[in-house]
Amino acid sequence: MTDYRAPVNDALFTLRQVGMLDELTKTQRFAHVDEETAASVLEEYGRFMQEVFGPTNAVGDRVGLQWSPEGVHVPDELTRAYAKFVEAGWQGLNAEEAYGGAGFPEAVFVLGAEFMISANGALSMCPGLTTGAIECLQEWGSEEQKEVYLRKLVTGEWTGTMNLTEPQAGSDVGLATTKAVPQDDGTYRISGTKIYISFGEHDMAENIVHLVLARTPDAPPGTKGISLFIVPKFLVDEDGSLGERNDVKCVSIEHKMGIHASPTCVLSYGDDGGAVGFLVGEEGQGMRAMFTMMNSARIAVGVQGVGLSEVAYQQAWQYAQDRRQGREIGGESKEPAPIVVHPDVRRMLLYMRSHVEAMRALAVYNAAALDLSRALDGEDGERWREIAELLTPVTKAWCTDVGCEVTSTAIQIYGGMGYIEESGVAQYFRDARIAPIYEGTNGIQAMDLVGRKLPMRMGGVVTDFIAEMRRVDARLEAAGDDFTTIRTNLAAALDALEEATGWIMTNGLADPKEALAGATAYLAMFGQATGGWLLARLALGAHEELAAGSDRTDFLESKVVSARFYADHYLPRVAGLLGSVRAGAGDLYALDVAGLASS
Amino acid sequence: MTDYRAPVNDALFTLRQVGMLDELTKTQRFAHVDEETAASVLEEYGRFMQEVFGPTNAVGDRVGLQWSPEGVHVPDELTRAYAKFVEAGWQGLNAEEAYGGAGFPEAVFVLGAEFMISANGALSMCPGLTTGAIECLQEWGSEEQKEVYLRKLVTGEWTGTMNLTEPQAGSDVGLATTKAVPQDDGTYRISGTKIYISFGEHDMAENIVHLVLARTPDAPPGTKGISLFIVPKFLVDEDGSLGERNDVKCVSIEHKMGIHASPTCVLSYGDDGGAVGFLVGEEGQGMRAMFTMMNSARIAVGVQGVGLSEVAYQQAWQYAQDRRQGREIGGESKEPAPIVVHPDVRRMLLYMRSHVEAMRALAVYNAAALDLSRALDGEDGERWREIAELLTPVTKAWCTDVGCEVTSTAIQIYGGMGYIEESGVAQYFRDARIAPIYEGTNGIQAMDLVGRKLPMRMGGVVTDFIAEMRRVDARLEAAGDDFTTIRTNLAAALDALEEATGWIMTNGLADPKEALAGATAYLAMFGQATGGWLLARLALGAHEELAAGSDRTDFLESKVVSARFYADHYLPRVAGLLGSVRAGAGDLYALDVAGLASS
Repeated sequence: MTDYRAPVNDALFTLRQVGMLDELTKTQRFAHVDEETAASVLEEYGRFMQEVFGPTNAVGDRVGLQWSPEGVHVPDELTRAYAKFVEAGWQGLNAEEAYGGAGFPEAVFVLGAEFMISANGALSMCPGLTTGAIECLQEWGSEEQKEVYLRKLVTGEWTGTMNLTEPQAGSDVGLATTKAVPQDDGTYRISGTKIYISFGEHDMAENIVHLVLARTPDAPPGTKGISLFIVPKFLVDEDGSLGERNDVKCVSIEHKMGIHASPTCVLSYGDDGGAVGFLVGEEGQGMRAMFTMMNSARIAVGVQGVGLSEVAYQQAWQYAQDRRQGREIGGESKEPAPIVVHPDVRRMLLYMRSHVEAMRALAVYNAAALDLSRALDGEDGERWREIAELLTPVTKAWCTDVGCEVTSTAIQIYGGMGYIEESGVAQYFRDARIAPIYEGTNGIQAMDLVGRKLPMRMGGVVTDFIAEMRRVDARLEAAGDDFTTIRTNLAAALDALEEATGWIMTNGLADPKEALAGATAYLAMFGQATGGWLLARLALGAHEELAAGSDRTDFLESKVVSARFYADHYLPRVAGLLGSVRAGAGDLYALDVAGLASS
Repeated sequence: MTDYRAPVNDALFTLRQVGMLDELTKTQRFAHVDEETAASVLEEYGRFMQEVFGPTNAVGDRVGLQWSPEGVHVPDELTRAYAKFVEAGWQGLNAEEAYGGAGFPEAVFVLGAEFMISANGALSMCPGLTTGAIECLQEWGSEEQKEVYLRKLVTGEWTGTMNLTEPQAGSDVGLATTKAVPQDDGTYRISGTKIYISFGEHDMAENIVHLVLARTPDAPPGTKGISLFIVPKFLVDEDGSLGERNDVKCVSIEHKMGIHASPTCVLSYGDDGGAVGFLVGEEGQGMRAMFTMMNSARIAVGVQGVGLSEVAYQQAWQYAQDRRQGREIGGESKEPAPIVVHPDVRRMLLYMRSHVEAMRALAVYNAAALDLSRALDGEDGERWREIAELLTPVTKAWCTDVGCEVTSTAIQIYGGMGYIEESGVAQYFRDARIAPIYEGTNGIQAMDLVGRKLPMRMGGVVTDFIAEMRRVDARLEAAGDDFTTIRTNLAAALDALEEATGWIMTNGLADPKEALAGATAYLAMFGQATGGWLLARLALGAHEELAAGSDRTDFLESKVVSARFYADHYLPRVAGLLGSVRAGAGDLYALDVAGLASS
């Protein structure tokens, strides 16, 4: 294992070329953030993560968590690292300044999040969930709730959770049955069982702010009857000090394939009469509050794919130089060569590297679109909101699916050693496998893309976006021979994407099942093509910086190679997925369930 | 978790349609095996595996192994199951009758092996390694070695191992340095360290027969200087009883991501002066002996992909009916529906099912080709040997890569529950991940396909094979509308495969790196296209059985649906890989190693 090093140069280059920092800085909301500030923050953040979080990753995986009736014990190394995180004030990076945050844009934040995930993916979930709670309370909390809870979340002194899932209510949140009974004092008594609650209980912070979806007594069935409540682990006295333990218990934690240092809790509310809960917003608006933070939460999960891929890439890159096997083809030496000389090993490295860069660019671009949607008014803001909405399911699903493949490729480069836990790369692979599942499974993301996002503005949003991607063509043509195959392969991929889009819009209108049958393949096309477009932009940016006289020749030229490798190898696969989109639902329903059984 | 059920009908259908049992039965070697015998053996074998091995799978994973200086303790449940396996005589299924075997063809054996792997993949490795040792000694052992060791291996009373890898010698076996010093009595003294030795030490059998690659004092460097030795754990006295403990020790076992019940041992030979070894064949012929069993060993590892995929499919199929979330699109009921009604879940099930069938068919066809190459003389045998050789790397690599994806898809169908170890599907995914690595990494398989197999008969073997695949076209045309898209998609996939083959042969001659750069993509094309061809044959066979009046309507019609789904969704992806083949090595070597680093 080599130590993780935060790829700050790659991050800043991505931010400059596709993060729209110039436009962000021009807005009132982000006027305090310029490239220099962003650079120094990311450098600091990266150093913190590589020095403080990074060294705790293996021990968190190996030692894991200890549950007892009193709570969940997190390994001391992680608790100490988290304390330093709080001390440094990093939790508030993208929180509003009014409540103690630094007010940085999401485009910068996701790059920091990537560093944190690379350093310790399991531990990163705690600040990650807190960020979600912050965003939710910023938007929906009362002034009092903001003063009491939000400020403590922004400092990181208290951590946050999201309580959606119940045993019978997973993807289908509307089936939730947790009860919230109103009391004369304006509070509610919450009772029910929530599962899969990440960091639902732990001993790293003095209090935990649970955000809980529950149903008031006369609420209508389904999602419309769901309200959102703050249920603190410890009640807060008037002077802000911690009071009584609330009626919520962690009754068990799950034994998972990965993210061993992230407690996945079963929380039981109301065993002793009901946990005290405080309504956030109005009754029946719980799902709306969830939707507020859905975009950033989903982008953040996509970033898990990026972060785990990046650190796995760093390990594989080093191992490929250290491990010697076989001779170089056409080489002079009779000694065993570092395996990086072999074509298939290089192919794997370039696959990993180019996809890390494409995923990172997608996450940053998506986050920047979200920032601009918030920072700009009127039509301009609306255009960016549309793009952010369109891309969010793609960022979440594509980056997490690719994250599984890239971390798997790291194992393959390690060979037998990769399968052995001590090598460390197996952990990235195990940790990565949850991301396609939570925060809406990738199947749900594909349904969201096809069922909600394509119909936006009667298809106008997706059509505009594809047209925007096509506009890079002229710049590619002008950039010369190095860009020829990028240009032709990108154009062909966009043709295929356009054809698939047309097929889905036409056939989905007649029968949604026809469109949904190909939704996952469509999302894969979308991600692969958009990744290629963003890499092309990075390559063009590099080309232009070179032309402008930058002396970072190696760095910039490597961006052109990444984009070309990806274009030559992966953009042609976009058209290969068209068959799956156009196959429709016929084959899927040709057999009844019994007919699908093995026999 | 539902209990595993061996898919005997699917297995027998595959055997009949692509296992060439009719042709095998006509040969002298396999005259004693007809369809009825094969059926009753596979039924018995399947029942044994589901009843005896199956229930030990979870405990083997959870409890794992205990190492001590005295040896490795396997959980008692597995030891008892193995004892029943020996008692039932299953180890000798495909061994030669002269030494106590039942002499069944590989085509039948691989189906049994699939059942064993589905039931307990980790435990299956012990009989699997023994099978390799049997095959090796059948071919290369002296008469005395066969009497002393082979007979005990065939009964399963003793188990076998393969000792190739050393810390510095993995894919590059020629770097092995383990020493073998000849003694006056004709034996050798073996000393050195071997790693990654599966079932290199355990307490399920009274003796272990290690087959060890080592280097005699004056041997030339590289693979030519390597010889093969029998090194029994306990020396065998003249009367066949066990004598002294040999000088070989298990100094540690690896802590792996999966196959927890399979001890992966570091074996130290010769700490006390040298382990007694007996030369197999002649000095310097060790690699030749390895090559003898390479085809069947690699097919067997491919079958690990099949077996783990099948059992993961069975679990996912059941879960998709039990788990209720969301409403059916266009359905009447307001109650949550079993998730199997949702298009994306059905897509995942059909993906899994069709690929299990394609992989199984490939393994059986490849094994049958191997059988025919052994059973037929002259030109006929040679033709089948060529096909077996051509397909072996494809079976190994494609089935194990797809095995990782299919087991991953089972997790996805389970959602959050799939990530939790108690569900059982996570184990299949973890267990499957080793198969693309051992027995020659999948990168090595791709090099084998492109570098050794395509050049066979100056390209004549692959050309003939593609032509053979094209011959199914007339039957598909005659079979009517249900087969239209199978026909067109298969033809297009074979066109792409042919084009890729031509590109590689042309460009690889000029520079091997050009060909090897696309080797992995080429192998994926080969596997996907060949899988589609074999599914088309299964579908045609089903069609013909239906036309002949079979009353197994549902079963047979389901084969047509599988083939069509696969053809519609996956055969178009073959052409999508062409770009990767034709991209060549330029992009791979455009940057030096430092230029590939994250920054």
